[in-house]
Amino acid sequence: MKKYLFFDDYSEGAHPQILEALIKTNLQQEAGYGDDIFSGEAKKLISDIIKDHSADIHFVSAGTQSNFIILAGMMKPFEAVISADSGHINVHEAGAVEATGHKVITIANAEGKINPRKIKEVMEFHKDEHMVKPKVVYISHATELGTIYTKNELESISECCKKNGLYLYLDGARLGSAVRSRESDLTLPDITRLVDAYYIGGTKNGAFLGEAVILVNDEIKPYFRYHLKQRGALLAKGRLPGVQFRELFRDGLFFRIAEHLNNMADRLACGIRDLGFGFLVKPCTNQVFPVLPDPLIRALDELYGFYVWEKVDKASSAIRLVTSWSTREEVIDGFLNDLKRLVNR
Amino acid sequence: MKKYLFFDDYSEGAHPQILEALIKTNLQQEAGYGDDIFSGEAKKLISDIIKDHSADIHFVSAGTQSNFIILAGMMKPFEAVISADSGHINVHEAGAVEATGHKVITIANAEGKINPRKIKEVMEFHKDEHMVKPKVVYISHATELGTIYTKNELESISECCKKNGLYLYLDGARLGSAVRSRESDLTLPDITRLVDAYYIGGTKNGAFLGEAVILVNDEIKPYFRYHLKQRGALLAKGRLPGVQFRELFRDGLFFRIAEHLNNMADRLACGIRDLGFGFLVKPCTNQVFPVLPDPLIRALDELYGFYVWEKVDKASSAIRLVTSWSTREEVIDGFLNDLKRLVNR
Amino acid sequence: MKKYLFFDDYSEGAHPQILEALIKTNLQQEAGYGDDIFSGEAKKLISDIIKDHSADIHFVSAGTQSNFIILAGMMKPFEAVISADSGHINVHEAGAVEATGHKVITIANAEGKINPRKIKEVMEFHKDEHMVKPKVVYISHATELGTIYTKNELESISECCKKNGLYLYLDGARLGSAVRSRESDLTLPDITRLVDAYYIGGTKNGAFLGEAVILVNDEIKPYFRYHLKQRGALLAKGRLPGVQFRELFRDGLFFRIAEHLNNMADRLACGIRDLGFGFLVKPCTNQVFPVLPDPLIRALDELYGFYVWEKVDKASSAIRLVTSWSTREEVIDGFLNDLKRLVNR
Amino acid sequence: MKKYLFFDDYSEGAHPQILEALIKTNLQQEAGYGDDIFSGEAKKLISDIIKDHSADIHFVSAGTQSNFIILAGMMKPFEAVISADSGHINVHEAGAVEATGHKVITIANAEGKINPRKIKEVMEFHKDEHMVKPKVVYISHATELGTIYTKNELESISECCKKNGLYLYLDGARLGSAVRSRESDLTLPDITRLVDAYYIGGTKNGAFLGEAVILVNDEIKPYFRYHLKQRGALLAKGRLPGVQFRELFRDGLFFRIAEHLNNMADRLACGIRDLGFGFLVKPCTNQVFPVLPDPLIRALDELYGFYVWEKVDKASSAIRLVTSWSTREEVIDGFLNDLKRLVNR
Repeated sequence: MKKYLFFDDYSEGAHPQILEALIKTNLQQEAGYGDDIFSGEAKKLISDIIKDHSADIHFVSAGTQSNFIILAGMMKPFEAVISADSGHINVHEAGAVEATGHKVITIANAEGKINPRKIKEVMEFHKDEHMVKPKVVYISHATELGTIYTKNELESISECCKKNGLYLYLDGARLGSAVRSRESDLTLPDITRLVDAYYIGGTKNGAFLGEAVILVNDEIKPYFRYHLKQRGALLAKGRLPGVQFRELFRDGLFFRIAEHLNNMADRLACGIRDLGFGFLVKPCTNQVFPVLPDPLIRALDELYGFYVWEKVDKASSAIRLVTSWSTREEVIDGFLNDLKRLVNR
Repeated sequence: MKKYLFFDDYSEGAHPQILEALIKTNLQQEAGYGDDIFSGEAKKLISDIIKDHSADIHFVSAGTQSNFIILAGMMKPFEAVISADSGHINVHEAGAVEATGHKVITIANAEGKINPRKIKEVMEFHKDEHMVKPKVVYISHATELGTIYTKNELESISECCKKNGLYLYLDGARLGSAVRSRESDLTLPDITRLVDAYYIGGTKNGAFLGEAVILVNDEIKPYFRYHLKQRGALLAKGRLPGVQFRELFRDGLFFRIAEHLNNMADRLACGIRDLGFGFLVKPCTNQVFPVLPDPLIRALDELYGFYVWEKVDKASSAIRLVTSWSTREEVIDGFLNDLKRLVNR
Repeated sequence: MKKYLFFDDYSEGAHPQILEALIKTNLQQEAGYGDDIFSGEAKKLISDIIKDHSADIHFVSAGTQSNFIILAGMMKPFEAVISADSGHINVHEAGAVEATGHKVITIANAEGKINPRKIKEVMEFHKDEHMVKPKVVYISHATELGTIYTKNELESISECCKKNGLYLYLDGARLGSAVRSRESDLTLPDITRLVDAYYIGGTKNGAFLGEAVILVNDEIKPYFRYHLKQRGALLAKGRLPGVQFRELFRDGLFFRIAEHLNNMADRLACGIRDLGFGFLVKPCTNQVFPVLPDPLIRALDELYGFYVWEKVDKASSAIRLVTSWSTREEVIDGFLNDLKRLVNR
Repeated sequence: MKKYLFFDDYSEGAHPQILEALIKTNLQQEAGYGDDIFSGEAKKLISDIIKDHSADIHFVSAGTQSNFIILAGMMKPFEAVISADSGHINVHEAGAVEATGHKVITIANAEGKINPRKIKEVMEFHKDEHMVKPKVVYISHATELGTIYTKNELESISECCKKNGLYLYLDGARLGSAVRSRESDLTLPDITRLVDAYYIGGTKNGAFLGEAVILVNDEIKPYFRYHLKQRGALLAKGRLPGVQFRELFRDGLFFRIAEHLNNMADRLACGIRDLGFGFLVKPCTNQVFPVLPDPLIRALDELYGFYVWEKVDKASSAIRLVTSWSTREEVIDGFLNDLKRLVNR
């Protein structure tokens, strides 16, 4: 029995305040399939926060679902999406995008991120009908390595996309943690202005499940509920994500949870750094990738749950530690104490 | 503001006992993607009840999702599924099955049901590679008209499928209501023995969401989690359906809810019959289709929420009334009183 | 060894004039993938004849290929095509349209044809995102039963489609025979004006292979070569259909062949009618469906190749006889003599 | 007007001997869709030459069509194909494989080729249902760079595939040139023994069109004609490739053409080498990639048709020269003279 699991940010249920909201609304009869009053109010709250009242908002149950439905909805059969080779859609979605008929064109990532130069190279290479036609750029923010884009970076990608007739889509599974990172100069309204579509992840930010899909570009708004229904994403009790997102955005809970994730990750990273260890990439959101000696990792594994991410050199590897809404300071401090003890053993 | 909504069985949240289970388990850290202890226990409980310990069980979030993932998993690209023309996959899933590449071959339904003679006709018609190859028979139980198959009927369909090399798949969105119908001589173990795959619907039987997919035939078991992941059905917090199904099957809650649905529907149907009205089809599960004069329907519509199903003749139509886990006797009695009053007006 | 095969209009090679054109052009070096001079000239000739110089024209190798590529190119993932239940795309293309992800909605045919009333019924039924969204109407001309649309009929379907935001697509596998039918008041320019896309069938009108896809509506023209390439329809030696269509439309060969098909079919039908037999539908193109006594059919089957189409009553069936570019008068007369002899036996 | 086009091996019609065969067989009535006597005889001849009488053989019209139909037929929805990044299916088929729902996993190529070590790395990386499951290895022979696999190399790839439960599929668009390369120690029977499926390219080896699909592994044989029909590849006049392949394999024409391609390419390569130029890769089949100074390329481009393949350094690029069945010695010698003259200018 491990002391604590740092595997991911979805090892527990929902934040107590969300549970409370579900209890309170439970008996109220409402229309199905997202036409309930709770979903309506949640959409209104999100519109206010992203400062775009003409954006279309839909709630779905999971991130892979958001990604492939939105991307498939943006493309004609012969069009393709550009992604970092480390992108979730390229590696960890079991070919969900390809299953809708579209190629994922990959770009070598730099700490999980891509840039306009690489996008332009892809555009220059794809020049006639013997090749797919690139139509969307996919980025994740925070990335799969916990890194984030700066405002400057996102603006240059956005501009490059506009120049090349490309949609820009942002996977926000961990968007809360990203926008509340102390390294971040990007706000939700900034992102809304710079991308064509994105989603705000609820599952990894305190909800039981739920992602808020935000369609900004008018071209991709029409008939989106048909896409949702056809791909199995229209929940009969659409109130379930609705109530949760209403609660997340009613009084700032979404951001408080995001800040908690980051604070706990920061506490963890500082403690590890103080012990003299480095990181695969500089930590700034709720995923921390310390590089540790392999024997230490094995010892740590007896006490805590986490993934060994990759070999770094002969004697050491990077591990991934993720904080969640339920991670308490005491847990972090306990982990650091154990780590210190094992180091000094 | 309507007095009560009889639109469907998903207008409220979850049964209080399920909510309670979610609260109790909320803080316990568990693996994601359905590998949690709650899902494991739920599967064990279901195995016991269906009397098949070698069946593979998976939890997904919705009925359309269950249908197209299972069906697509059963078929080669050129294979097709046979369904009643009234079948949910044919009418109300926005082409989800076709979106996976497969044709739905339709049979004229008889009160929502199909029979071996019609299946044989389809088999005789499809004779070479210029046509699709029928591979699966899809039935719903209860059907979209609230009717159910008898043991004899299901056995004959099952036998016909085996003879013709067809899989038999049963859509159990309202399976609880079906197996607890007083007209039913079919049990879950019977169904498990007679079909190749089915799902037990949770969403319409007291859960927030969740369908338990049961794979009986060994041929369709391997790699099913790949299908789930690729189609966006693998929930990060897989515990959410897991906890709910564990609670539904721990002490018979699933069946108590099903019986409640049926009792309330029965009370409703008897009261309507006593007022001299008939039904589109004889009621036996939680969907009741009374045929009422159009002016009466309009008056009723001021007070209650329901769907007008279809015109029956010049002056009358069938409406659909659905009971849910939250429907109380007082609501039924109030409805019947209002109906009586409107009739006598 | 049968005396002659009336199975279909593709039992021989190509018309000698087409073979001659292939021989003459064989050594001339030309660009691949349809950018050759022959294809260019063929397109120009067709533009002149259909009286639409802004239509986009592409050559593909087969009818099923034309159908599913054009239809898939016209639709978003949740959109569907309306077809007669007897339509080639519904019955005899092995689910090719569904394999591209789209549902075929069927209408009960009347002698192979559909009408605006039936289309309107489909439109009224499909009213929200739980159902597919009808987007295209598919008709074949001549139909699978050899019947043809009148100008009046096609105009009313075209108008109905425009009113309902539907594209109209015409499968012209046997378009030559249709427009040269003595019952026809529809010309190629009429058809071009009334539909959004269609194809002119070459394979069944004297070519080795080749269908000329005509895209009339501007919305469906862009990037069509991407669709062709992705679906495997862009022939490296695109000159092969190009040379053939240039020859077919250079000096009226296409129409002379069509007239020959019809004349031979007419001679056949008249002779059969003179012997006192009726037809499944009144013959007017190169497919003739006489209704004959079953013993006579069996006797005829010893001498000639043809398909038994369907049982008409206990003692008789309709057979299908098809004429081709190679069918000579002597063959028809021989067949009629044999039939007379067998009748009088 | 250019003196000669070296763009590709499909700039002319068909080899005269093939044209002759089409003329001779033109009037003979035969069954459609590949059930004709010519196709039957062609299959028998190929069976003899590949020394496998249990292989299933089908004729299709083009290479992209062969590739995606065979690959899609080999895979379950979540399975993927491994290819060199330079592979035709990855770069030049407009996403045809992805359009059937499957991911192409890429391996960095070495002169167009892949090896077992790279395949093993892919297998180790793809370890659970969050990722696609690799199922097929795709290789081209000759490759897109004109290189070929040795017997030793193909055996080791084949063994690696068997060990890892992978099918091995070989794209033989230029298989004639490959097996008749003077560098080749691989025969058609060797290939048949080592792969699960492949195709013998006719289009680039003298035919108007046509590729002979060879299914070796019993698992992929059943129902293949359904795949062909559904993907639009079943030609009505199936005799067209049938007659051509019968002629190609009746008296060795296929190999004579292949040898001619190689001899002409060799003459070209030797002449270029004699002038002191090198090659992007060592030439061994009918594609030659000389590296020339950019000004020389520009001058050459006035006289001959060819593709500039890639920049090699600041001042020079590789061009692609391809020989065809119609390339005569005089053309090669003329080209070399012109090149010499331009060099010495």
